[in-house]
Amino acid sequence: MELALNLAKREIDTSKTYDVLILGGGTAALGAALYAARYELSTIMIAQSIGGAIIDAPLVENYLGLDKTPGVELVNKFRAHVENYGAIIAEGRTVLSIERKQDLFRVKTDTGEEFRGRAVIIATGTRRRKLGLPKEEELTGRGISYCTTCDAPFFKDKVVGVVGGGDSAITGAVQLADVAKKVYVFVRSKIRAEPINMDALKPYIENGRVEIIMPVTVQELLGNEKLEGVRLSNGQELRLDGLFIEIGGVPNTDFLKCLGVELDNVGHIIVDKEMRSSMPGIFAAGDVIDHPLKQCITAAAEGAVAAYSAYQYIRGMK
Amino acid sequence: MELALNLAKREIDTSKTYDVLILGGGTAALGAALYAARYELSTIMIAQSIGGAIIDAPLVENYLGLDKTPGVELVNKFRAHVENYGAIIAEGRTVLSIERKQDLFRVKTDTGEEFRGRAVIIATGTRRRKLGLPKEEELTGRGISYCTTCDAPFFKDKVVGVVGGGDSAITGAVQLADVAKKVYVFVRSKIRAEPINMDALKPYIENGRVEIIMPVTVQELLGNEKLEGVRLSNGQELRLDGLFIEIGGVPNTDFLKCLGVELDNVGHIIVDKEMRSSMPGIFAAGDVIDHPLKQCITAAAEGAVAAYSAYQYIRGMK
Repeated sequence: MELALNLAKREIDTSKTYDVLILGGGTAALGAALYAARYELSTIMIAQSIGGAIIDAPLVENYLGLDKTPGVELVNKFRAHVENYGAIIAEGRTVLSIERKQDLFRVKTDTGEEFRGRAVIIATGTRRRKLGLPKEEELTGRGISYCTTCDAPFFKDKVVGVVGGGDSAITGAVQLADVAKKVYVFVRSKIRAEPINMDALKPYIENGRVEIIMPVTVQELLGNEKLEGVRLSNGQELRLDGLFIEIGGVPNTDFLKCLGVELDNVGHIIVDKEMRSSMPGIFAAGDVIDHPLKQCITAAAEGAVAAYSAYQYIRGMK
Repeated sequence: MELALNLAKREIDTSKTYDVLILGGGTAALGAALYAARYELSTIMIAQSIGGAIIDAPLVENYLGLDKTPGVELVNKFRAHVENYGAIIAEGRTVLSIERKQDLFRVKTDTGEEFRGRAVIIATGTRRRKLGLPKEEELTGRGISYCTTCDAPFFKDKVVGVVGGGDSAITGAVQLADVAKKVYVFVRSKIRAEPINMDALKPYIENGRVEIIMPVTVQELLGNEKLEGVRLSNGQELRLDGLFIEIGGVPNTDFLKCLGVELDNVGHIIVDKEMRSSMPGIFAAGDVIDHPLKQCITAAAEGAVAAYSAYQYIRGMK
């Protein structure tokens, strides 16, 4: 009986009105889902996939209490935790649009479904920023990659480049230096990585396997069938087998543009301390907002706060 | 050699100037220490003890990724994680005062020591709020308790009261109902506990073991050698063997008063989104600030943000 009830509770049901629709599948969305479910709000997460930015991390060392955990394992722990409390996860769906009709929000997905909710928590994160150079798209998967963790192993004994100066670029360079013959790091202005990550790179800089070139930008991608090299802003041309682009993300808020939620000039949702957007009933958390620190622990906390605010909002509404 | 270095690194050294002094030993302080250490700032935590508010929780269910973990175990995980990255923990010390001299802060403790730091993260949390009634102090430990988790087992088959309407009061009432004969809950205005916690209480309300009296306040504590009962604002007098006061906390910021850091009218440190107080070099996180949601996950995240801001501050200073 209990089991039957639980199963019934967890079915995806587009005919019902949920208390909270959570858009996204990363840490902020999972943090929100845990809290929303614990507030006993009927809650559904709508996401292409579960995991978000953290799933690509080989080893997460700074989520307090879970030292040295592979990103995938961390996501699995998060997901299991959330599912224990009854939030429904609707995977394999991309959100196309969101509309407000009276006090209800309607979210349409690429599966042709429509979900209705009293409140919406947007935790759609960011997509990887591109260089914006000719041939970038054609050469993606043919030497160009946006995910060091995914693709580094393919470049054993090869010559590769990394674009970027943040933590993902520097830790990516460390990973690549473990397999590649030579790694160039192209930094536009300055290195913004954590010192502890730079320290991991230092031995490779000292033994010449890694070379940092800065300040420099990539001006041209060379090669047609596959990437063969780059031309840099300092005039230098380098032969490369691979190029890893690790220059951060762009907020996934395109689907929001007609709703009238206030965004900043980069596209982040503007929220207050309680994760409330400019529109009542719309909350946001994680990399889709402009927060001072983009970390797993901050995303989880923001999700919790967004759920709390949604709970307050719904309680006031009912 | 490595071991010797590590040991040397971890010695408490009052002759040196630390990058960051972290005041407090709870989740926010531990979150800050982890990040500060990873930023390679020389970091020392100064605390009476390690654990903070969470250590009294019998079972923490809402720290994403670590479901159903006893508070003590969670604290041990946090501590081990922090110590892995080299933050020094100076326990058994209460902070008495903090002064600023030029760009350095000096923190004096009840051990007669003085610690110097370039930046300070205040995560001293709250102390339990008292009713403020005559005889409250004398009867503490003689029937009056501020910690259900600690003292519930002493009240097997007894008649007890709980004061409060938040999560700690309601979960406390559940714990007490498991052992006591009768539990009265005195709620001043309304119940603010999570519905999931109220649900756990419901069976006990239905079987009459728990009785909620609201809206009501405790007007008088009866008994001299030990607590014998209470008189309520509705005129009712009840015989009680124990009274658990679970009405939240008061920020521990008395030691700050001469420094000139801006506090709100309750004594919380006022911070911006980046956990910066009104005074450059002073940051704060956790229950000592006025945040929308007082949770383990939010405290950990605020600690991380405070450490990041301290790191930025010190980097700018050097």
